[in-house]
Amino acid sequence: MYKVQKLLVNYKTLEEFKKFKEYGVQELSMLEDLQENIIENDSESPFYGIYYGNKLVARMSLYRIDGHYDRYFDPPQDYLELWKLEVLPDYHGKGFGSALVQYAKSYNLPVKTNARQRSSEFWEKMNFSSVTYNPNRDRGENPYVWYPDGVHEQQDPTTDNSLIKETDLSSESIES
Amino acid sequence: MYKVQKLLVNYKTLEEFKKFKEYGVQELSMLEDLQENIIENDSESPFYGIYYGNKLVARMSLYRIDGHYDRYFDPPQDYLELWKLEVLPDYHGKGFGSALVQYAKSYNLPVKTNARQRSSEFWEKMNFSSVTYNPNRDRGENPYVWYPDGVHEQQDPTTDNSLIKETDLSSESIES
Repeated sequence: MYKVQKLLVNYKTLEEFKKFKEYGVQELSMLEDLQENIIENDSESPFYGIYYGNKLVARMSLYRIDGHYDRYFDPPQDYLELWKLEVLPDYHGKGFGSALVQYAKSYNLPVKTNARQRSSEFWEKMNFSSVTYNPNRDRGENPYVWYPDGVHEQQDPTTDNSLIKETDLSSESIES
Repeated sequence: MYKVQKLLVNYKTLEEFKKFKEYGVQELSMLEDLQENIIENDSESPFYGIYYGNKLVARMSLYRIDGHYDRYFDPPQDYLELWKLEVLPDYHGKGFGSALVQYAKSYNLPVKTNARQRSSEFWEKMNFSSVTYNPNRDRGENPYVWYPDGVHEQQDPTTDNSLIKETDLSSESIES
C-alpha cells in the first residue's frame, strides 16, 4: 500500500526527476518554463509519483485523451495514456511500479502505454495486452493496453492511411 | 563506408531482428503476417540495415510522413521519421549508427526521431536538435530533429489542443 500522489512542478521535483533515466526534452522544457516564469512554482504536472520517506522513488505521467481521438478501444471513449513509468534501481521489486499502474487503472478508463524494451512480461502481469500493430497509428511504438470490463480492441481503426507515403523511399542501397 | 540496404521481410531477417533490444509488437506482427501468408516472403519492410559479413549488425526503420501532417518543420513538408536505430553491442563505436543516420539525411528531407534515454549526445553529434516540447504533439516523446538547409523549427504548431483533457484527472492522492 503506497501513496500515489500528483507531482507539482518545482525545482525540488525537477531535481529529483534527474535521477530517472527517462529525463529528456519534456523535463528540460518544464525547467525552462519555471526559470522564465512561464509556469508558476508548484503548478500541476502530468506526473504522479511515490515517495519513500522524502525521496521520490517511482513516477509515471498520465494524460486523459479525448475519446474523439480514440483509435484503440471499442467502444471509442476517453482513455489514459501512461508514459515514463519508472522505478529507481534500488527500489525495484518492491511493488512501486505495480502500485502506479494500479492507480492508473483505478479511474476505470482504458489505459494505453508504449512498452519499453523487454518489458512485456511486466505489462502482461498487469493484465495489459499487446495490440494488433498498425504502422500508421503506432509509428514505431510498442503499444500495450488495458481493457476495463466491456471494452475491447478497436477493429480496423480509422487511421489516415495517407500519413505514411508508401512508394517514395528508394529501395536501392547506397554507400553511406 | 558501410553499405546501407533496405531489409526484406523473411524468416531469416525476422530471426536476426530478435538480437535487437527493440524487438516488439511491430516485429511480432510481421512474423504473424508472414506465417499467415498475409504478406509475401521478401516483401518490403520499413527497415534499413547494415550487414557485417553475413550478420545484420545495425538497423533502423524509416518512414516518409506526408507534409500535410507536418507539425515540426517550417515550411511544412514531407519528412522522415526514424525509429529503432540500434547497433548490436559488439559492434558499437565503429560508425554503424552514424552511417545509418547519414543514409537518412541523404534524402535531404527533414528527419525526426524519438531519442532514447541518454542518447542526446549522439544526436547532437549528428547535428540533430531538440525541439520545444509540446505535450499535445509530443505525448511523452523525446523529439530530436534534423533541419536541412532552409528548414526551421515550426513555431506554434497547430496541434489540436482538445486531444488532452486538462482538468479531469483528480489531483487528490489515493491509496493504491
